[in-house]
Amino acid sequence: MESMTLLLFGATGDLAARKIFPALFRMYVNKQLPQPFSIIAVGRRKWSARQFQDHVAHALHMYGQDCTTQSQHMQPFLQMIDYFEMNLKDGRAYSELHHHVQRKEEELQISGNRLFYLSVAPEFFEGISVNLKKSGLCNSTGWKRLMIEKPFGRDLQSARELNQTLAETFLEEEIYRIDHYLGKPMVQNLESLEYANPMIQAIWNNEYIANVQITASETVGVEERAGYYDHTGAIRDMIQNHLLQLVMMTAMHLPRHMTPEEIRDEKRKVMEAIRPLRQEDVGQHVIRAQYETGYVDGQEVAAYRDEIGVAKGATTDTFVAARLFIDTPRWQGVPFYIRTGKRMKEKSTRIVVECKSPKQQDSQGDTLEPNLLVIRIFPDEGITWQVNQKSPGKDGKLEAVSLHYMPDPNKLPEAYELLLADAMKGNAAHFAHWREVELSWQWVEPIIQAFEQNAVPLHMYEAGSNGPKAADALLEQDGFQWWLDPVISEERTPMTIS
Amino acid sequence: MESMTLLLFGATGDLAARKIFPALFRMYVNKQLPQPFSIIAVGRRKWSARQFQDHVAHALHMYGQDCTTQSQHMQPFLQMIDYFEMNLKDGRAYSELHHHVQRKEEELQISGNRLFYLSVAPEFFEGISVNLKKSGLCNSTGWKRLMIEKPFGRDLQSARELNQTLAETFLEEEIYRIDHYLGKPMVQNLESLEYANPMIQAIWNNEYIANVQITASETVGVEERAGYYDHTGAIRDMIQNHLLQLVMMTAMHLPRHMTPEEIRDEKRKVMEAIRPLRQEDVGQHVIRAQYETGYVDGQEVAAYRDEIGVAKGATTDTFVAARLFIDTPRWQGVPFYIRTGKRMKEKSTRIVVECKSPKQQDSQGDTLEPNLLVIRIFPDEGITWQVNQKSPGKDGKLEAVSLHYMPDPNKLPEAYELLLADAMKGNAAHFAHWREVELSWQWVEPIIQAFEQNAVPLHMYEAGSNGPKAADALLEQDGFQWWLDPVISEERTPMTIS
Repeated sequence: MESMTLLLFGATGDLAARKIFPALFRMYVNKQLPQPFSIIAVGRRKWSARQFQDHVAHALHMYGQDCTTQSQHMQPFLQMIDYFEMNLKDGRAYSELHHHVQRKEEELQISGNRLFYLSVAPEFFEGISVNLKKSGLCNSTGWKRLMIEKPFGRDLQSARELNQTLAETFLEEEIYRIDHYLGKPMVQNLESLEYANPMIQAIWNNEYIANVQITASETVGVEERAGYYDHTGAIRDMIQNHLLQLVMMTAMHLPRHMTPEEIRDEKRKVMEAIRPLRQEDVGQHVIRAQYETGYVDGQEVAAYRDEIGVAKGATTDTFVAARLFIDTPRWQGVPFYIRTGKRMKEKSTRIVVECKSPKQQDSQGDTLEPNLLVIRIFPDEGITWQVNQKSPGKDGKLEAVSLHYMPDPNKLPEAYELLLADAMKGNAAHFAHWREVELSWQWVEPIIQAFEQNAVPLHMYEAGSNGPKAADALLEQDGFQWWLDPVISEERTPMTIS
Repeated sequence: MESMTLLLFGATGDLAARKIFPALFRMYVNKQLPQPFSIIAVGRRKWSARQFQDHVAHALHMYGQDCTTQSQHMQPFLQMIDYFEMNLKDGRAYSELHHHVQRKEEELQISGNRLFYLSVAPEFFEGISVNLKKSGLCNSTGWKRLMIEKPFGRDLQSARELNQTLAETFLEEEIYRIDHYLGKPMVQNLESLEYANPMIQAIWNNEYIANVQITASETVGVEERAGYYDHTGAIRDMIQNHLLQLVMMTAMHLPRHMTPEEIRDEKRKVMEAIRPLRQEDVGQHVIRAQYETGYVDGQEVAAYRDEIGVAKGATTDTFVAARLFIDTPRWQGVPFYIRTGKRMKEKSTRIVVECKSPKQQDSQGDTLEPNLLVIRIFPDEGITWQVNQKSPGKDGKLEAVSLHYMPDPNKLPEAYELLLADAMKGNAAHFAHWREVELSWQWVEPIIQAFEQNAVPLHMYEAGSNGPKAADALLEQDGFQWWLDPVISEERTPMTIS
């Protein structure tokens, strides 16, 4: 890998401590970092490099998986980190930063490759971008790349404006829009699942697949993000980015050996084929809901409206479920159901592919469960296949059982490790292309408008439940039901064969 | 279930102690035995009923799975068992047995249903059958059924003779020929796997399946059965019955809700469609081998020829591998490879269904493992599905991983429980029909002749190995390889993702 400088804006923030530095440290331990390599941590606090390194050391102990066993690597890793204190809104500071970076590059003999990572609040995105250009930080002999965290706009219009501003400093191929769901090994695996497996290839079409269900449910509420969340809601916070990304990853059809450009092209084609919603149809296909008080893990929790930082009588969506159709020959007629919610019963992100029922009709009245292929993404990654078998000793009655692939989570790389490594290599396959983002905003736009105009009901659901009844009814209309996480439900009702 | 008497011939034998009584006891504990129910244990030893009950109690403690926790059931169970001492070759003794049974039936108010279970050496089969008729034991107001252990003949001719003799006393539908492999839940499951699972149905044909591999390998040698085995060999001991039964169970095509008669009919159709071998073709499709000295589980073990009870220079087959074809539209061109051996590296019975490679050609030279569906039968039952996924963090390299279904073996019924229950209910689905037996003997006949005439090579293989190289070459000719037991190989080389 080429030598480079990583400029991390927002280096004193929470994400840096929890995810970015632990990922960088693990990459260092696994010799996945370039050499020479320099990290310039940019923040507002008045810290020395030494103070910041102590802060990182503490973060690694708190959030790093294997730091205690890797202590011999700790000091050399910390020494790669420099700290630069600045006010992100002060244009002159960027020139000073530029000089600082240049000195560091000379000192360490690093070519001018610069990776800018914006781990800051969205209101800083445009200012930083503009100043990176003005200051000359983006004029070097090497390449420049921008990694940028969500949110990428709060609607179609603002996303376009943001993109326009970024485009004045960076080319599209230099922008790495992070959707950390795309950094999950199991999500990346969706690319190969079809072409690498004839048994999946055989059924990967509307002849065999009845529907696809994508769930991202959390048990937490809005916590200290309430102020932000109350202006955002699940539709912007989760659906526009993560859930639609998972739809694209699931539905795209990839031949083998695709370039990152081709992969993103295939995703864009999916997004383009998602049937647009007219605002008047939102009520038919989208369920909006908000949590009331209830019990999560045995603890009573407050209703959304009573959370600190939430406006009185807020109609913010903490839960959204939607039915969408992808108008391609492969997926014609196969509903994709997506849902996300806070304060739900389970912490689980998964994709459930439900097969159509066995073709033979059942004449004796015993019901057959459908075959399910489940891609588990969170909390643990894995694959589950639910099949039917004769229940031993029960007169040949059929029962559903699950085959599991459960890799040791400690042996899987973290999303941020994979994403940082890709960006360093210049592989944008698992970052959102502008067109994906734009099309996603376009698709959710009528939903946002319907929500804001209160044109669709706001359902209430008990905290700690599986969401509002209306979300169940959405599937029942089509003769389906939401499937539980197969691992969680097995733990609850262990198999009993007497 | 109707009341009945079970007459167990060979009640003092090894099989009765290890399998039959533990199965009956577990059925008793699980309330699966008829009421009233009487067991008449027939043996040559001069034992009282009490002595025999002590013997059974001891056997249950030795071989029963959960006897210690079920001790409150022990006495009532033992009290159902009566012992009748007789010489099996003494015709008059059968009349006495008849009277004994009648008295017991009156005493316990059992209708005349009689289940005769022959757990004796094969030389007694015909004599017992004849005497059951002569003595009047088979003339009662109830039904009569015969359960008979293997071997059913030692070639086509002797099997036909045995069947003829049995037919003088029992109708075909009264004869329950035990193949205990058919009592395994996972083997019975083969009946429903296709029709109950659209994802399997989709690939269950020669368009998707490359080959089927059925292995039954043992680590033990001939032990105290050497004298018998030396006149039998693997072809008679394993291939003619167990392995061909597994072929039939795998290849049959069942719609849902079949009667036992229809199931056996489908099996017969498979057996009829297996392409016959001419004697001159045996060398091309069948590998005969015998073990030499070697190491099994770290212990040096003797060559077959040096085992006590084996004739000097014996050419007996302790290993057989064969390639066969099933000439039906579904299986045309799909080789079925079967193999069995003693003193092999692994104790494992399994069926591996190998899918054809992904249709897309690989242009970049990384090889893709085929999708495998593995039905594990022994030592533990289960299902494994091997698929390909992107190896996390390895630049998208593909790797094979396995999904497992591994039910708790302690919760699965034993083969003999299921078989006894079926015979008691009059369900012959999982017993070998005469036509299956006859057709199996017919298929192996040219192989037996080629072996006996030494018309094919006798390969030697090291004890503790995977068999002779010639058996590997049999698959390599077709571009294939034997797949290992996926659970065993995972234990050996645990997944390491750094």
